[in-house]
Amino acid sequence: MNFCSECAHPVSLTIPDGDNRPRYVCGNCGAIHYQNPKMVLGSIPVWDEDGDMRILLCKRAIEPRYGYWTLPAGFMENNETTTEAAMRETIEEAGANIQLHELFSLLNVPHVHQVHMFYRATLLDLNYAAGPESLEVKLFAPKDIPWNEIAFQTVGNTLKFFLEDHAARQKGGYRFHTMDILKPMPRAESTAAS
Amino acid sequence: MNFCSECAHPVSLTIPDGDNRPRYVCGNCGAIHYQNPKMVLGSIPVWDEDGDMRILLCKRAIEPRYGYWTLPAGFMENNETTTEAAMRETIEEAGANIQLHELFSLLNVPHVHQVHMFYRATLLDLNYAAGPESLEVKLFAPKDIPWNEIAFQTVGNTLKFFLEDHAARQKGGYRFHTMDILKPMPRAESTAAS
Ligand SMILES: [Zn+2]
Ligand SMILES: [Zn+2]
Repeated sequence: MNFCSECAHPVSLTIPDGDNRPRYVCGNCGAIHYQNPKMVLGSIPVWDEDGDMRILLCKRAIEPRYGYWTLPAGFMENNETTTEAAMRETIEEAGANIQLHELFSLLNVPHVHQVHMFYRATLLDLNYAAGPESLEVKLFAPKDIPWNEIAFQTVGNTLKFFLEDHAARQKGGYRFHTMDILKPMPRAESTAAS
Repeated sequence: MNFCSECAHPVSLTIPDGDNRPRYVCGNCGAIHYQNPKMVLGSIPVWDEDGDMRILLCKRAIEPRYGYWTLPAGFMENNETTTEAAMRETIEEAGANIQLHELFSLLNVPHVHQVHMFYRATLLDLNYAAGPESLEVKLFAPKDIPWNEIAFQTVGNTLKFFLEDHAARQKGGYRFHTMDILKPMPRAESTAAS
């Protein structure tokens, strides 16, 4: 940030009165331009035919992590709720008709200023199709999940939590999971969101 | 938003290629200035002496909702996690030493572009003190909670969920609660956050 978005005057990083951290402050109109973490919302769309459970993943057609697999997810927009965002991203990226269930995971990724959340979801039919941000959309049995080609740690960990709860679903069912991902993966772009 | 924060050229509201909603786009450098919901993080600090449970509330010293009571909460900052934000706000607003427990509630407030989250917390001592954004900080027994002077619907509903779970804690304990607050309260400023 170089200039004030209200009056176009240059901004400078200073600690405003009564605050305790540097903000971009306008030297002309005094506007303080706060920067805050963003939410990434997604779903875990599941197709279960006679106990043969499969999870819908999308192969990314965009950077970061082009060509890697992800759960459908993306930035939450103004004027929508977390469930609306998860539903919209699932439709946009996977063309999938789903019924959304409860919030399943919340993962902090502080070094990229993001919080990722995933809802459990049931796929209502098999008419899914790759949206413009996906190369391919495909159902994976638990044993076939491409663990070495998962786009983001938040997705990998959510899938791991989900499969653990699914395996133990006779005694207790699905729990709500939280996790902090404090270190970037070796690749610099690895945890930036779709 | 009137000007590009990168190059100071005027921005205009247009739908970028491949997007489906209007964004502030710079006519000079092409920067797209996304606007996303913000997270408000807080805690439910509890002091329990021999089953005599009390909850710590703060009387707001700032607008919106000056003079109304709230749980300690505020905007999450970049580079922190949801738990760090909840802890920091509790210290800043209530000067309270707490141990944070699990995430208790997540409430969408889409008309103000916010998601509010509250963690359960145990007050470790009684050395709390009003911070600069609080007029007063006080422990309330459930029967004394000033329901008609609660600052935000997210706080009122979180307190209600908490007292219900607390009353039923022998059979089941505390659950994770989600809620969408879709309509503003009669007062225009009522659900904007601290
Ligand atoms: Zn300005
Ligand atoms: Zn520009």
